[in-house]
Amino acid sequence: MAKQRFALLGSGFIGQVHAASLARHPDTELVMVADVDNSRAEALAKKHQARAVDVSTALNSDSIDAVLIASATPSHAELLEAAARAGKAVYCEKPIDLSLSRARDVVEKVLPLKIPVTVGFNRRFDVSHQQLRRQVEQGAIGHVELIQMVCRASEMPALSYLQSSGGQMRDQAIHFFDLLRFLTQDEVVTVAAMGAALALPEIAKFGDVDTSIVMMRMHSGALAQLDNTRRTGHGYDERIQLMGPEGALESGSQSPQGATLWRGNQRIQAGLWPDWFSRVQETYYAHLDAFVRHLAGESIPDLPGLLDGLQAQAIAEAAVTSLKWGEFVSVEQFAR
Amino acid sequence: MAKQRFALLGSGFIGQVHAASLARHPDTELVMVADVDNSRAEALAKKHQARAVDVSTALNSDSIDAVLIASATPSHAELLEAAARAGKAVYCEKPIDLSLSRARDVVEKVLPLKIPVTVGFNRRFDVSHQQLRRQVEQGAIGHVELIQMVCRASEMPALSYLQSSGGQMRDQAIHFFDLLRFLTQDEVVTVAAMGAALALPEIAKFGDVDTSIVMMRMHSGALAQLDNTRRTGHGYDERIQLMGPEGALESGSQSPQGATLWRGNQRIQAGLWPDWFSRVQETYYAHLDAFVRHLAGESIPDLPGLLDGLQAQAIAEAAVTSLKWGEFVSVEQFAR
Amino acid sequence: MAKQRFALLGSGFIGQVHAASLARHPDTELVMVADVDNSRAEALAKKHQARAVDVSTALNSDSIDAVLIASATPSHAELLEAAARAGKAVYCEKPIDLSLSRARDVVEKVLPLKIPVTVGFNRRFDVSHQQLRRQVEQGAIGHVELIQMVCRASEMPALSYLQSSGGQMRDQAIHFFDLLRFLTQDEVVTVAAMGAALALPEIAKFGDVDTSIVMMRMHSGALAQLDNTRRTGHGYDERIQLMGPEGALESGSQSPQGATLWRGNQRIQAGLWPDWFSRVQETYYAHLDAFVRHLAGESIPDLPGLLDGLQAQAIAEAAVTSLKWGEFVSVEQFAR
Amino acid sequence: MAKQRFALLGSGFIGQVHAASLARHPDTELVMVADVDNSRAEALAKKHQARAVDVSTALNSDSIDAVLIASATPSHAELLEAAARAGKAVYCEKPIDLSLSRARDVVEKVLPLKIPVTVGFNRRFDVSHQQLRRQVEQGAIGHVELIQMVCRASEMPALSYLQSSGGQMRDQAIHFFDLLRFLTQDEVVTVAAMGAALALPEIAKFGDVDTSIVMMRMHSGALAQLDNTRRTGHGYDERIQLMGPEGALESGSQSPQGATLWRGNQRIQAGLWPDWFSRVQETYYAHLDAFVRHLAGESIPDLPGLLDGLQAQAIAEAAVTSLKWGEFVSVEQFAR
Repeated sequence: MAKQRFALLGSGFIGQVHAASLARHPDTELVMVADVDNSRAEALAKKHQARAVDVSTALNSDSIDAVLIASATPSHAELLEAAARAGKAVYCEKPIDLSLSRARDVVEKVLPLKIPVTVGFNRRFDVSHQQLRRQVEQGAIGHVELIQMVCRASEMPALSYLQSSGGQMRDQAIHFFDLLRFLTQDEVVTVAAMGAALALPEIAKFGDVDTSIVMMRMHSGALAQLDNTRRTGHGYDERIQLMGPEGALESGSQSPQGATLWRGNQRIQAGLWPDWFSRVQETYYAHLDAFVRHLAGESIPDLPGLLDGLQAQAIAEAAVTSLKWGEFVSVEQFAR
Repeated sequence: MAKQRFALLGSGFIGQVHAASLARHPDTELVMVADVDNSRAEALAKKHQARAVDVSTALNSDSIDAVLIASATPSHAELLEAAARAGKAVYCEKPIDLSLSRARDVVEKVLPLKIPVTVGFNRRFDVSHQQLRRQVEQGAIGHVELIQMVCRASEMPALSYLQSSGGQMRDQAIHFFDLLRFLTQDEVVTVAAMGAALALPEIAKFGDVDTSIVMMRMHSGALAQLDNTRRTGHGYDERIQLMGPEGALESGSQSPQGATLWRGNQRIQAGLWPDWFSRVQETYYAHLDAFVRHLAGESIPDLPGLLDGLQAQAIAEAAVTSLKWGEFVSVEQFAR
Repeated sequence: MAKQRFALLGSGFIGQVHAASLARHPDTELVMVADVDNSRAEALAKKHQARAVDVSTALNSDSIDAVLIASATPSHAELLEAAARAGKAVYCEKPIDLSLSRARDVVEKVLPLKIPVTVGFNRRFDVSHQQLRRQVEQGAIGHVELIQMVCRASEMPALSYLQSSGGQMRDQAIHFFDLLRFLTQDEVVTVAAMGAALALPEIAKFGDVDTSIVMMRMHSGALAQLDNTRRTGHGYDERIQLMGPEGALESGSQSPQGATLWRGNQRIQAGLWPDWFSRVQETYYAHLDAFVRHLAGESIPDLPGLLDGLQAQAIAEAAVTSLKWGEFVSVEQFAR
Repeated sequence: MAKQRFALLGSGFIGQVHAASLARHPDTELVMVADVDNSRAEALAKKHQARAVDVSTALNSDSIDAVLIASATPSHAELLEAAARAGKAVYCEKPIDLSLSRARDVVEKVLPLKIPVTVGFNRRFDVSHQQLRRQVEQGAIGHVELIQMVCRASEMPALSYLQSSGGQMRDQAIHFFDLLRFLTQDEVVTVAAMGAALALPEIAKFGDVDTSIVMMRMHSGALAQLDNTRRTGHGYDERIQLMGPEGALESGSQSPQGATLWRGNQRIQAGLWPDWFSRVQETYYAHLDAFVRHLAGESIPDLPGLLDGLQAQAIAEAAVTSLKWGEFVSVEQFAR
């Protein structure tokens, strides 16, 4: 197979993560890097023997097969549309757009173009979460009745980041709204959420929370819970449990390797990963790999697509509404 | 210290559990047993060298110091009031009465009598839960911000039991409403609940559920989640986790002792306790012991009292209301 | 079934443990207690509504069915012989006698009397060890090829105890020599041992060690390791692992219940049981129960008998010899 | 820092592992590859944009700073000597030579040349083992009194490999003889070993074993155990525990990530790594990294050197002798 030639749009933190994956993958080649900050694009391009270009050069080049959009969120929708129109395959970081209606407009334009697109729900590619999916599918616990999801990031992001993040539901919880759909192959019907700004009270000024819990009723009748925090005192804690009539399945909290010390009446082991990135790092590569195999014609049934992006955003909108009004909210109105 | 001489009212399953505790405790003596089914009372009395009597004999006897009410729920309120009026110390199984207003009436009559009374929230005396309480108090995790509670009973109770149980909130979840107050020393402000009759759909006819999730906002601002099931395929699963800015504390799922087998790519260990009783068994004795020490003058700050009984019931009422109407419900209206 | 009426010989620490078991078991009755220290016997007898008597009264009484020998080690052999001659069933604490030849003499006299006798290898009745035995028998790992046993007591016994204990092999390791035979149904052929007095150097004066490792070759060709310590800084650590061509089985280190604390980069859990007794406590009752069921006619294939007592002592003698001379030692010469 | 330019001698399995590390490390460059099988060298060289050369070209080239010897064992000694004489830094796979006296001769010639050399005891660079070392050094358990090491490879190597491997002690156990010295900073004084050919009886013909246990007395008085197997039914099992008066430290058996399934009375988790390579893989890179940092002038106190190579071989020789004669064997005679 010829290598897939990528242009990377965006060379900030997450762009650099993707650049490293593109360099490591045997079937991809990082050919161009674009960024509004050209010097940053040049530094990253140089590191990987690529070229720093402007976006239109990348999109119009015959030597580019695929585009990876890792730029600032407000630019996603426009770049996605442009790349699709240029006939490039697209790996687009989530969200498609912070505005669900804008996101829906773009999706409606892009879908008919039948371009291969994946949306950045990389956590679907966590090895343990994938085992959950497979075991659920194989009937290990019977049909799913109850889901418990935990997403506790260890360190408060910068205030500036939070101000433009869209809030905890649209920025953080959204990964788990997607995982819920992925793991259960079911849709969320009703959402109720409670939240508070306990770690950084000033974010309440712009209506955000850093600690929240969400209840959801699924179409099948199953019930789901999610809790999210923006900072912990014990590292990055991500875990998912599903229960059915015949058993329970867990993708548990994960720790780096380490020694165990028994002293007196204590047993002391390694705690959790220090931050979200050390835990989820491998999933970026695995997602890219799935996308590349998809481009090569392999069937990847769980590759997150544009409609998955819209659906997770619809749940997030319902959760935002519930947080705001203290009501049970139907997802349908946001999902159309 | 002279032994505390007990009359046991009720000789069904839970009465027999308490009888065994009273026989085993060095500072208690089981003197009398009463039951509407006299032959059952006699069998239990005989086993423990006690006397089978009727209730009024027990309450009027000078050789009785304390009464343990383990009879059918509808008789609790009356027996509690009568025993208190007779000047006996009382250990009363929960709930005081399925009707919160009836329960409140009784409590208002009993409280002024200044009789030692404890209400049967035995799970407060679980060794691991108590360690949570102590470590929270000592500041191990800072102030509590997030609580996650799981109560998954393994086997569906009999339909007849369920019909008179008051429903999952009042019968099962109530233990965890109490534990939440015990562990956080905080009060619940708002409740939202979702439930479904997934395991035994016929209970929906009388408005009950067997699978439910509950969200609560605490007075301090902390957020709490609870899930309850009436049957699992993996034994009895009870666990509680608390999180604060400096760490997280867990009283985890518990298993009987057993061997571990590694074979091929699996590691197979003992699963959970087969049923709720095998897990919580020891807490009945520990609760009794705390009550006896209280009677002997020791300060037992966490001994669950009448007001604890009312407060847990108020939360349950709010949850029932939320389940019914799909709304966020304030506890205050039920707590007066 | 009529209750088995027991006389307890010896009312020290371990005698009191057995007295509590006899009181608790539904099919046994503690009728008499004898001790060279009569006041100690009286105190224990009183506690359990039994009679303090002298040994010959107990052995000659028609109201005694069985004798439990829990006296000082030097008296075991004589009491065992006398009790057997008096026709009483006997539960005899290990060892039969510190002198293997004296022990063998007694066994040769007692065996023809066909009296039910069990020797105090209570660890055979540990729930997890029993699961090992059963799973090995069921072929979970194939035939046993490698065994690893750990016995690490937490607190150095008193010097006075050690001086008359017979040394670490005869006093502590002997339980694991028996467990090895029990778990593998195989015999030890060759022993090699290394030891040192690291925790209490003065015991080297009388040839004892407090830290030792033992290698054994089994008749089947399997290889076994054992390590023993007399004191740790991390509680009582007992565990056994067996390996075969198809897997490995472990009865692991055990801990009391407790909460888990995650803080920073640590996960802190309950350590091990504080001392040997808190871990093995339940096995005394389970052993007694097995003996009582044996007396009632049930087949208890693994009830440790007189020949088990001799065989474990033979391995201990071989280990003592290896420790002393730094040589591989054949067990056969001690087992005759 | 200029990159260290490496010639790789040997392009078989382990040579390919090292080639990948050299390609991945930011401060190394794989410039040349040599192999007796030139086509294999060419294939590997091509993959990494290097040149396939003969050994003398590599050793005489000015564009080579360091040599990595990953060729067949019998060639190690000669290549090590030649590379050192050519003034190249050397990373030499273990053993230096299967013959201890030949190995000693080479070391005596190479040492005076004061060339940087490391011997391939890569397991020193396992993250968890390194934590053991650091925590022991920091006094977490007091002085070391007892060590337990387990090395159980999952799949029997090919008979042809075994025939030229030098046997289980020299080929497999040697890594743990080195780890023992590394972790305790102590020397082995006496060795006793037992072994058997249980998995593949035909290896007994050439005096080898596949299942063995080794006891060692250390200079400090500490005692150590090791068990080795060549195949298991439960994956690759490597673990080390150290005990001292104040606690115990463990670098435990490791598993890949995976989901946990609770069903009925079982808890089923991921078992161990399928084979030795999946577990120790990362240590090759970490060892190379330490060597490169050493070349750059950093102090790496635990970098395994030539004398470490000799010392581990001396212990292996003592173990081989003990296996053969059934005797306790002093290491001193082999260590000179």
